[in-house]
Amino acid sequence: MTSLREQVFEANLALVRNGLVVETFGNASGIDRPRGLVVIKPSGVDYAKLTPADLVVTNLEGSVVEGNLRPSSDLATHLELYKAFPAIGGVAHTHSRHATAWAQARREIPCFGTTHADYFRGSIPVTDEMEHEEIATDYEKNTGLVIARRFAHMDPLTMRAVLVAGHAPFAWGKDAAEAAYYAYMLEEVARLAYMTVAIEGAAMSISDSLRDKHFLRKHGPKAYYGQEKT
Amino acid sequence: MTSLREQVFEANLALVRNGLVVETFGNASGIDRPRGLVVIKPSGVDYAKLTPADLVVTNLEGSVVEGNLRPSSDLATHLELYKAFPAIGGVAHTHSRHATAWAQARREIPCFGTTHADYFRGSIPVTDEMEHEEIATDYEKNTGLVIARRFAHMDPLTMRAVLVAGHAPFAWGKDAAEAAYYAYMLEEVARLAYMTVAIEGAAMSISDSLRDKHFLRKHGPKAYYGQEKT
Amino acid sequence: MTSLREQVFEANLALVRNGLVVETFGNASGIDRPRGLVVIKPSGVDYAKLTPADLVVTNLEGSVVEGNLRPSSDLATHLELYKAFPAIGGVAHTHSRHATAWAQARREIPCFGTTHADYFRGSIPVTDEMEHEEIATDYEKNTGLVIARRFAHMDPLTMRAVLVAGHAPFAWGKDAAEAAYYAYMLEEVARLAYMTVAIEGAAMSISDSLRDKHFLRKHGPKAYYGQEKT
Amino acid sequence: MTSLREQVFEANLALVRNGLVVETFGNASGIDRPRGLVVIKPSGVDYAKLTPADLVVTNLEGSVVEGNLRPSSDLATHLELYKAFPAIGGVAHTHSRHATAWAQARREIPCFGTTHADYFRGSIPVTDEMEHEEIATDYEKNTGLVIARRFAHMDPLTMRAVLVAGHAPFAWGKDAAEAAYYAYMLEEVARLAYMTVAIEGAAMSISDSLRDKHFLRKHGPKAYYGQEKT
Repeated sequence: MTSLREQVFEANLALVRNGLVVETFGNASGIDRPRGLVVIKPSGVDYAKLTPADLVVTNLEGSVVEGNLRPSSDLATHLELYKAFPAIGGVAHTHSRHATAWAQARREIPCFGTTHADYFRGSIPVTDEMEHEEIATDYEKNTGLVIARRFAHMDPLTMRAVLVAGHAPFAWGKDAAEAAYYAYMLEEVARLAYMTVAIEGAAMSISDSLRDKHFLRKHGPKAYYGQEKT
Repeated sequence: MTSLREQVFEANLALVRNGLVVETFGNASGIDRPRGLVVIKPSGVDYAKLTPADLVVTNLEGSVVEGNLRPSSDLATHLELYKAFPAIGGVAHTHSRHATAWAQARREIPCFGTTHADYFRGSIPVTDEMEHEEIATDYEKNTGLVIARRFAHMDPLTMRAVLVAGHAPFAWGKDAAEAAYYAYMLEEVARLAYMTVAIEGAAMSISDSLRDKHFLRKHGPKAYYGQEKT
Repeated sequence: MTSLREQVFEANLALVRNGLVVETFGNASGIDRPRGLVVIKPSGVDYAKLTPADLVVTNLEGSVVEGNLRPSSDLATHLELYKAFPAIGGVAHTHSRHATAWAQARREIPCFGTTHADYFRGSIPVTDEMEHEEIATDYEKNTGLVIARRFAHMDPLTMRAVLVAGHAPFAWGKDAAEAAYYAYMLEEVARLAYMTVAIEGAAMSISDSLRDKHFLRKHGPKAYYGQEKT
Repeated sequence: MTSLREQVFEANLALVRNGLVVETFGNASGIDRPRGLVVIKPSGVDYAKLTPADLVVTNLEGSVVEGNLRPSSDLATHLELYKAFPAIGGVAHTHSRHATAWAQARREIPCFGTTHADYFRGSIPVTDEMEHEEIATDYEKNTGLVIARRFAHMDPLTMRAVLVAGHAPFAWGKDAAEAAYYAYMLEEVARLAYMTVAIEGAAMSISDSLRDKHFLRKHGPKAYYGQEKT
C-alpha cells in the first residue's frame, strides 16, 4: 500500500495547498479496487504534522487493516461512495468556503459560464436534507447513501461533485489526486457563481450548446484542449 | 503568574496569527481562579512589540497587581464575564471582520450548517443595545453585564461566543487558548454565514437533529471525532 | 521572433503575477504585423513550467510556423481580433474572477467611477450570446467574430476590453504587455463595480464630463497625468 | 525640507504597505505651515522605485520649488484642502477598494459600529457631484473646493475623511502620517460597512451615545484608551 499511501497523502496536502481546508476539516481517500482496501486521512490530525505513515488503511466494511490512528470520522461516507460509484478511485471532502456557502444555502450551483462547463456538465447538485432517523443512526454512512440517491440517474464521471445540504461538498475522480483537483475546481466555480448572483440575482445558466462545447473540448474522445496525451 | 502570562501572551498572538486583529483591536485574558487574578493585554500596545512582561495582572476588582502598563480598556468587560461564568478560564475580544459585520447588522448568526454546529450548538446570540445610562457610566463593565444578561438561560460552555450589538464579538473557553480558538472559529462561521445569506436571503438553520449530531460528535462524553484523548 | 517571444512570455507571466489566472486558464499573444506572425502560449501548459521556447508561432491562418506544442485552444479568437482590429498588437484572455462574474451575469460594467474612466471610456461591453451554430462549428473563431461584431461602431483603442457573454474577458492593446495590463485593470474595475452594486443596486454611471475628463487626462494628445514621455 | 520629505515619503509607503494602492493611484502630502511649502508624491511614478528625492516641493499656488518631476496631478486638490482646513498638516488620497466602492455608490458610510466611532464621529460624508463647468476647468482645484463646501459646518479634525462622489476618498490629519493612517482606518470601516449592508440592507447607525463614548474614549482631553502619552 506504500504507493497508494503516498498518493493519498499528496492529495490531502493538495487540499491544504489550494486553500480548501480550515483547521482539520477535510480529507481525501483512495481505493485499491482489486484488494478492496481504502487509504484515508486519520481523524482530527493537524495537516502540518501529517505523514504518509499516519494514514489509515481499512477494508470496505470500515475495519482498520493498517495504522494506529482512528480513520477520519467521514470514512463511512467515503465507503458508500466507493460502493455506489464503481468507476471512481478517489474521494475528497472539504469545507471550502464558497462551496460550503452554497451547500448551506441549499441551492445547486447553476452552470453560469464556461469555466464551470470546463469541469462540470451541468449544475452541481444538492442532496436532499437528511431525515432525523438518517442522522440519529449511522449518520456518516447515510450521508453517503443520500449522495448516491441523488446520483441515481447521473454519471459520477460527468459530474464529479455534490453539495450535501446544510453541510459541505464532496468530490471524486479516478484517483485521490483527481478527487482533490475537482474539490479545488468546485471551489473556484462556486466562487464565480457566488459573485455572479451578487451582480445579477436572476442570472441564468448558459445554453446547453455552450456548456457541452466546453465540457467536450476538455473531456472524452474528441477533447482537443491541452497537449496530446502520449 | 509566569505560566499564565505565557498562556495569555500566546493567546494574544494566536488572534493576530489567525487574522482576527486589525490595528490594536483585540485582547485575550486568562484567570487564575484560586488566586482570583486575571492576566490581560495592555491597552493600545502594538502586537508586534508585545512581550509576556507587558501583560498586566489585576484582581477581580480591576486593580493592577503586577505590571507597569495600563490594562486593556476592555478589562472591566472581561471581569464581568469571569464573575458571571464561573466555568470559564479565558476571554477573547476581537473586531474580526465578519463577526463584527454581523454585530453591526445586529443579527444573530443562524446555525446554517454543520461547520457552525461543530463548534456552537445554535445561533450565535446578539446582546440588547445598550441604553444611554449604561453607556454614560461604567460602559465597559456594563458591556459585560449586557452579555451576562443575554446568557441568563444559556450555558456558556455550549455557546462560547456572543455578538455585542453595534460593537463586535467576545468569545471564551476553559482557558485563554480556547477563548482565542473560539474567536477564530466564530470568524470562520460568520464568514460562511455571510456568504450564505448573500446566495440565499431566506436561508434557514439546519435541523436540530443535524445540529446536535455534529456538536455532540465533537463535544461531551460521547464524542468520537479526532483521536482518543490519552 | 526572439524578441516577440520574450515579450509575449513576459505578458503571460504578468497575468499570473497580477492574480488573473486560475489553473491554466489565460493566455496572451503578440503579433509581428509586417511578417503576419503571431506568438501565443501553448495549450494547457502549467505557467510555472513555461519557458519562452514553449511559445508557439503561427501565421494568421493559425498554422504553426515554429514550436513543438499545440497553441492555445483560444488561438482562433486571437486571430480574429488581430484581423478585425488592425491597430492592436497584443491580446490577453483570462478568467479573472470579477470580470468573469460580470461576463457570467451578462451585464456590461457601467462606468461607476473615475478609476474606470482612467482606463475605459464608457461601459465595458458584453457580447451577444453565441448561437448554437456558432458554437457547433469553428467555436473559437466565432468567439472572435462575435467580439468584432460588438465593436462594429467602437474604437478598440478607446475601449480595450470586452466581456464574452457566459464566458470571460478579452483585453488588448498596442502590444502583449499592454494587453496584459488592460486585463489587469479590467479586473480591478470589475471588482470595484461588483462592490458598488452590492452597496447600491441602483448605482449609476458618472457623468460623461467626469468620465471624459479622467480618460483624457491620461490618454491622447492633451494627457497630463504622469511624467513627460521623453 | 529633508525631514518633511522623509515624513511624506514614509506616509506614501504606508499607503502601499496597508494595501490601499492599486497601480500608481494614491498620494500623500505634508505641509510646512510657517514656510507655506507642500511636499507631495510625483505623478505616475511606480511606488517600488520611489525615493525621498523624487518628492516634489511646491508653494501654495502649486509652483514647483524643488524637484525634477511633475507633482501628482491631484496636487491642486491637496492645496485647496490645506487652504480650507488650517488645522491640518497632511493629506492622503487613495482609490482603496471599499472606500472607493462607497464613493462610486455615492452613499455616505453610516456609523454602523464602534470600530467606526473609534475613528470618525458620524457618517463619512459624500461630496456633491461635480458640475460640468467644475470638471471642464480647474478640475483638481474644484475637487478640493467641493470637499471644502461639504465641510462648511463640520470640523475636519472630528471627521478626517470624505468620499468624493463617483471618485474615491481623501483623508487628512495633523501630519502626513496621520493622514495615511486615517486613509487606512477609513478603508477598514468601509469594508465592515460593506459587509454590514450585505447582511442587513436596513442596517442602522448606532446611537449617538455609543458613538460618542467610543470617539471620546480615544480622542480629546478625556481619552483613556492606550497608554498615557508622556
